[in-house]
Amino acid sequence: MTVLDSARGTVDAVRAEVCALHAELVRYGLVVWTAGNVSARVPGHDLFVIKPSGVSYDDLTPENMVLCDLHGTVVEGDHAPSSDTAAQAYVYRHLDHVGAVVHTHSPYAVAWAARGEPIPVVTTMCADEFGGDIPVGPFAAIGDDSIGRGIVDTLRGSRSPAVLMQNHGVFAVGPTARSAVKAAVMCEDVARSVHLAHQLGRPLPIPPDAVDALHDRYQNVYGQR
Amino acid sequence: MTVLDSARGTVDAVRAEVCALHAELVRYGLVVWTAGNVSARVPGHDLFVIKPSGVSYDDLTPENMVLCDLHGTVVEGDHAPSSDTAAQAYVYRHLDHVGAVVHTHSPYAVAWAARGEPIPVVTTMCADEFGGDIPVGPFAAIGDDSIGRGIVDTLRGSRSPAVLMQNHGVFAVGPTARSAVKAAVMCEDVARSVHLAHQLGRPLPIPPDAVDALHDRYQNVYGQR
Amino acid sequence: MTVLDSARGTVDAVRAEVCALHAELVRYGLVVWTAGNVSARVPGHDLFVIKPSGVSYDDLTPENMVLCDLHGTVVEGDHAPSSDTAAQAYVYRHLDHVGAVVHTHSPYAVAWAARGEPIPVVTTMCADEFGGDIPVGPFAAIGDDSIGRGIVDTLRGSRSPAVLMQNHGVFAVGPTARSAVKAAVMCEDVARSVHLAHQLGRPLPIPPDAVDALHDRYQNVYGQR
Amino acid sequence: MTVLDSARGTVDAVRAEVCALHAELVRYGLVVWTAGNVSARVPGHDLFVIKPSGVSYDDLTPENMVLCDLHGTVVEGDHAPSSDTAAQAYVYRHLDHVGAVVHTHSPYAVAWAARGEPIPVVTTMCADEFGGDIPVGPFAAIGDDSIGRGIVDTLRGSRSPAVLMQNHGVFAVGPTARSAVKAAVMCEDVARSVHLAHQLGRPLPIPPDAVDALHDRYQNVYGQR
Repeated sequence: MTVLDSARGTVDAVRAEVCALHAELVRYGLVVWTAGNVSARVPGHDLFVIKPSGVSYDDLTPENMVLCDLHGTVVEGDHAPSSDTAAQAYVYRHLDHVGAVVHTHSPYAVAWAARGEPIPVVTTMCADEFGGDIPVGPFAAIGDDSIGRGIVDTLRGSRSPAVLMQNHGVFAVGPTARSAVKAAVMCEDVARSVHLAHQLGRPLPIPPDAVDALHDRYQNVYGQR
Repeated sequence: MTVLDSARGTVDAVRAEVCALHAELVRYGLVVWTAGNVSARVPGHDLFVIKPSGVSYDDLTPENMVLCDLHGTVVEGDHAPSSDTAAQAYVYRHLDHVGAVVHTHSPYAVAWAARGEPIPVVTTMCADEFGGDIPVGPFAAIGDDSIGRGIVDTLRGSRSPAVLMQNHGVFAVGPTARSAVKAAVMCEDVARSVHLAHQLGRPLPIPPDAVDALHDRYQNVYGQR
Repeated sequence: MTVLDSARGTVDAVRAEVCALHAELVRYGLVVWTAGNVSARVPGHDLFVIKPSGVSYDDLTPENMVLCDLHGTVVEGDHAPSSDTAAQAYVYRHLDHVGAVVHTHSPYAVAWAARGEPIPVVTTMCADEFGGDIPVGPFAAIGDDSIGRGIVDTLRGSRSPAVLMQNHGVFAVGPTARSAVKAAVMCEDVARSVHLAHQLGRPLPIPPDAVDALHDRYQNVYGQR
Repeated sequence: MTVLDSARGTVDAVRAEVCALHAELVRYGLVVWTAGNVSARVPGHDLFVIKPSGVSYDDLTPENMVLCDLHGTVVEGDHAPSSDTAAQAYVYRHLDHVGAVVHTHSPYAVAWAARGEPIPVVTTMCADEFGGDIPVGPFAAIGDDSIGRGIVDTLRGSRSPAVLMQNHGVFAVGPTARSAVKAAVMCEDVARSVHLAHQLGRPLPIPPDAVDALHDRYQNVYGQR
């Protein structure tokens, strides 16, 4: 029995979930055409599932998702994987707590990224979900480990589950696929509100201890236990 | 026969209405993910119904709404109530005319809230619905009565059925659940139009007596009697 | 046989068309809640059909549209007509070529209206549909003929089928209900593009003779003959 | 057997594809009312298929698309073709590699066009798809070959598949109808992100060799081979 045989049920469940969650990127306006993707680990195996490259969201099925090992090599699937596969594989290799990665070019977040500016924590939603500013990673060349390394190094210096890669877009992570998608959705919402706040003046700061209290409560009390 | 027995039909009707009205928050783009909620009193009883915490709008049913007493203690329901329950309970305890409360982080309103600025009454829609500027309440710490007190104190000083809580979001109220949702929808629409007006110059003021005349007519003549 | 008997088929057709066209206001984001309406003349009779006041777009039917005479008095219908009925009746009494009126508070147009500024003709779409700047009418008190007179006086001085009423919103007209709705849709689209153009600098003017040529061609060649 | 007999199957396939792709213009908010269109060559014939003028997107069918020769003369169809037919015919006559043309007045792109400014390449998405700045063509009078000539001259000086015509809108091209629609979608997305980036400061430049590397990879590696 191969690894894939033993993982079959788990792989199929991850294929279905990763496929379905792309609809949330569309619903919240985080992506146009084919520019954005979700990937998630196969729990208990050194594998992850990711969107095929350049395939429309309308045409995604659990079957055309691509299964890769943690070096981004295709293990199972008839399609080429997302062109972000190498970057996401790097994240999975280096951050054990990350169960899923989401990449978007959502417009307000890209605006902050194009200027190379972190999004300052001036709303309670930002404190709740991101625990501080949403940080910016470096401009990274394509074709080597630069993007993955930029994501990992930036996330390690922050409580934020999202990073803005300079001139590029958003990479959001989470323990589960749903939590990573949520971080991508909240990142754009915060990017937009804080953009709008700056257009007519200066937002008021939130004291650091209030940021801590909001973040702690949201991570530990919010939702169903 | 317990209070709940005698209130059964009324509670069920409020559960159904509160559940259904969340669709309006989604339709008008006032909420993302699970960040916003509706609550409403059970008429004739010291009870209110509120959204469960962290549950997706797609998954709301009349049955998973949570019934609370006016101190925010769960009376009936399998889910934890919204993390805004304490604040809304405070409003119900202190403002008898309030039959419903809506909370959102709608983006243009949040932009005004992040700067701590009221929205000036420069459109007839704002005069109609809010009778003047839409006021700003204080930045309030989480975990005690600060948010509730901030909402109540601010609403008492204004004709507006909506308040922007600083760095946070919108709390809108009304005699009925539908009227509170309407106030939240109009608040974001006014926040957006007035934001846009300020981006390219200064909006013209509306004379105070014209504001009064617009508000009086809208409250007393508009709609079906 | 009364006037209404002889007009029955025509009235019913206008009720159906006016009702249906409200869906276009929703589709293009020109209205929230119940804040906007369509009316249209009954051809060959001194009558017009208009939306009932404060009724949701989801709940509109041909039967709950309200039939009025040209002084805004209800001739047939169980509902109170739109609170804009008097203004629209004034337009029908004074401008024979107007077959329909649309009123919205669409957000970018309201931003220009709140500053009391006409929208300058800097896009070919504006030249095509409006033949020049989109003009601004006065701030008009509610409850007498001021709004209607402001609309009529402003439209008489312009080729534009839309007027921005100061601090208020858009009134658009046309020979048919469909053309008036189109003018309202195009007005918001132009208001938005020109707003965006001004945010980062100054748009380039279009020479007046080019505006004339664009308008002439669009009015006489565009579409199906 | 006439040319049309031999081309029948191909013409019908192009009619169906051109008709269907208009739904993407609507989905991505690139058009309002009837203001935008798709055309595509009939492979192997000096013919192209284009939207009928002034017909609503809801009412488009493969049958009411209009077949024209490369001078814009109607060859088959009961409707008048788009008023942009002459401009698009000019493009097909002068640029052999263009298989399809899309025209929109998408709002952020129009804002850049109204100022006569190219969109600078400050995001990886812009480098990927456009290979540099998105260029601006001249203000062109209606009624002769000016628009077509402006499009062709501007595209010849750029790697970009889209051009902003001054004060007017977007013309996007591609080898296939789908690729031209994609370029129009990406053009608006880039126009918006870069607009937003400029609103709060200055975006950081991307080095020219990084632009080249991104463009080369996206054109040659992205998607399914």
